[in-house]
Amino acid sequence: MVERGFPEPEYRARLARAQEMMAEADLSALLLTTEPEIRYFTGFLTRFWASPTRPWFLVVPAQGAPVAVIPSIGEALMAQTWITDIRIWSSPDLEDDGVSLLADTLAKIAPGRIGVPDGAETHLRMPLADWVTLQSKAPGCVFASDTGILRRLRMIKSPAEIDKIQQSCGIAGRAFARIGEIAREGVPLEDVFRRFQMLCLDEGADWVPYLAGASDQDGYADVISPATPEPLAKGDVLMLDVGLVWDGYFCDFDRNFAIGPPSPRAASIHARLIEATQAGFEAARPGATVADLFHAMDAIATGGKGTSDVGRLGHGLGMQLTEWPSLIPQDQTRLVPGMVLTLEPSIEVSPGRIQVHEENILITEAGAQCLTPPCGPEMPVL
Amino acid sequence: MVERGFPEPEYRARLARAQEMMAEADLSALLLTTEPEIRYFTGFLTRFWASPTRPWFLVVPAQGAPVAVIPSIGEALMAQTWITDIRIWSSPDLEDDGVSLLADTLAKIAPGRIGVPDGAETHLRMPLADWVTLQSKAPGCVFASDTGILRRLRMIKSPAEIDKIQQSCGIAGRAFARIGEIAREGVPLEDVFRRFQMLCLDEGADWVPYLAGASDQDGYADVISPATPEPLAKGDVLMLDVGLVWDGYFCDFDRNFAIGPPSPRAASIHARLIEATQAGFEAARPGATVADLFHAMDAIATGGKGTSDVGRLGHGLGMQLTEWPSLIPQDQTRLVPGMVLTLEPSIEVSPGRIQVHEENILITEAGAQCLTPPCGPEMPVL
Repeated sequence: MVERGFPEPEYRARLARAQEMMAEADLSALLLTTEPEIRYFTGFLTRFWASPTRPWFLVVPAQGAPVAVIPSIGEALMAQTWITDIRIWSSPDLEDDGVSLLADTLAKIAPGRIGVPDGAETHLRMPLADWVTLQSKAPGCVFASDTGILRRLRMIKSPAEIDKIQQSCGIAGRAFARIGEIAREGVPLEDVFRRFQMLCLDEGADWVPYLAGASDQDGYADVISPATPEPLAKGDVLMLDVGLVWDGYFCDFDRNFAIGPPSPRAASIHARLIEATQAGFEAARPGATVADLFHAMDAIATGGKGTSDVGRLGHGLGMQLTEWPSLIPQDQTRLVPGMVLTLEPSIEVSPGRIQVHEENILITEAGAQCLTPPCGPEMPVL
Repeated sequence: MVERGFPEPEYRARLARAQEMMAEADLSALLLTTEPEIRYFTGFLTRFWASPTRPWFLVVPAQGAPVAVIPSIGEALMAQTWITDIRIWSSPDLEDDGVSLLADTLAKIAPGRIGVPDGAETHLRMPLADWVTLQSKAPGCVFASDTGILRRLRMIKSPAEIDKIQQSCGIAGRAFARIGEIAREGVPLEDVFRRFQMLCLDEGADWVPYLAGASDQDGYADVISPATPEPLAKGDVLMLDVGLVWDGYFCDFDRNFAIGPPSPRAASIHARLIEATQAGFEAARPGATVADLFHAMDAIATGGKGTSDVGRLGHGLGMQLTEWPSLIPQDQTRLVPGMVLTLEPSIEVSPGRIQVHEENILITEAGAQCLTPPCGPEMPVL
């Protein structure tokens, strides 16, 4: 039974690691604006981020506890976390939507170099005009890069985080095991999408932020499109790729199913994908790089010719559907225990048509451990 | 039967209006980076935005058609839209994740003042470091505010957009009508959340990005928290607030239910909320301001003393759960036909505990029209 939330020491440990890195980088504070960044240090968990109206800020000083500078609508929920210094304003405020309060907080508690996440996969979740104002309003503060501190912290998961990811993987695995209840020849793909989300919820998902998929003869053209009303047809390979959430943590993996007996070509491609994934799995040991994982899988998937324009053969995951690093030849990030990755090889079945397979793994001292239920070389036939 | 997608003339009309406004604002192009902004002009609809890895760009020039500058993984899907000038790069690219390609595109097709959404409720969805690089890399281009063009465009919905919002409202309405199947005394709130999302999907939602709610004696403390395992108890008022999506358009409304016969206090507060909503509805005519709607509702909800720290009594909605404007005393946005708004009064039941009611309305020449199914003054009893 996995517990919801984290005990306070988990947050204190995250803060201590961040403050060590801030000292090395000569930063007086971190300024955070996005959902996963703020949740990482506070535990503030809400689907209210779907509303773009209000900015939210967290100041993580080089010494002492984080300070939340947030709209008053979030006060009650933030007060349930371990954060005690919560500064609020009534948002939306058309004149000054938290900018003065934030500037004042920064100038008082952490004058100096303020680190802001600014690298790949990040963005600043506040209006650009307010960002410009802020920079001129916080005396004694200079804004600089966070030097990748957030990325380095979040890339290594704690045992409690891993439990939550595994919980999500288990829920999705049980939903996939019930696919026969909802998918067969003649069922429109959009019905399969809807019903599969229902299965995920029925098996315990809190919500289902991501579902992609496709169904076509032997393989499919595209892995990010929404569902069509097209009915599943004999000879199709149906792929569903799900990112569901349990207590704020994602799984992200797919499964392929044959609608009626698969063609020899479709079947052999699928078997090769599983073989490629296995090669990635075996290469995934502390000390290897993510580029090594790419090459291990690519050697089998394409014979080393490089993959399609999907652009990578896997990535990190955790509080977000996709996280740093990327399994590409250029990424030399070295594996260490606690990383959670997807292995996601793809193979071209025919011009413009591919199959993709995806698993989620954990890096341990002893090598990789699969977080997703085992998947054999043979596609299940529906 | 509402059609999915929009015919090409819809996009051409949006573009023409944008280009008129760009001429007035002396802008040579708009640079867009977020999901709703890019979808508004292209129809590019995918849940893949859940992945923060890759930046996506759309250039809307002062003359001619929009140009998509996007990761190659999106090429096939973008090619299904009316956009023909699609420039791709293989992303993620650790050295240059589309920045040079974007700079080159801007410098060639639209040198001059490039408008970027920078006001309230907006953000720039690209790494801050890349934004700095871009500004020095596009010769002949100066980046400026979009002067609220996107806000002004998106605030007025077309008949086809309104149909989609109404479709979402209808789906959620049918799910609420089935609440008795899943909610009663003793059922944990988190089960109600899961099952309610399943009802929404069963009734035709594509997905359910937002669900908030609470259940407590006579009212509740908080409207943005995730579900707890607490079972529904006699005397509770259960509130569910849902933002589901059909073909990329949201509804956003709530319903309150009494668990067992409500107390006289709970029942009278609910009746007053409905009365306040009705007052907002009657005030919602072209020419009135959103501030007028605030005051019409607030007069009944609090006797004009002003509301709780929720901060506003409603807002726009459409491609996002919440959109401009805000129903607050400071917002003097004037109502015009085609606006879709929520009316969302709240009343304090006891210190720290409120009830909230929410409906979705359309502004027409003749006044307001309700998009959500009618809700009487009496709370349904479960």
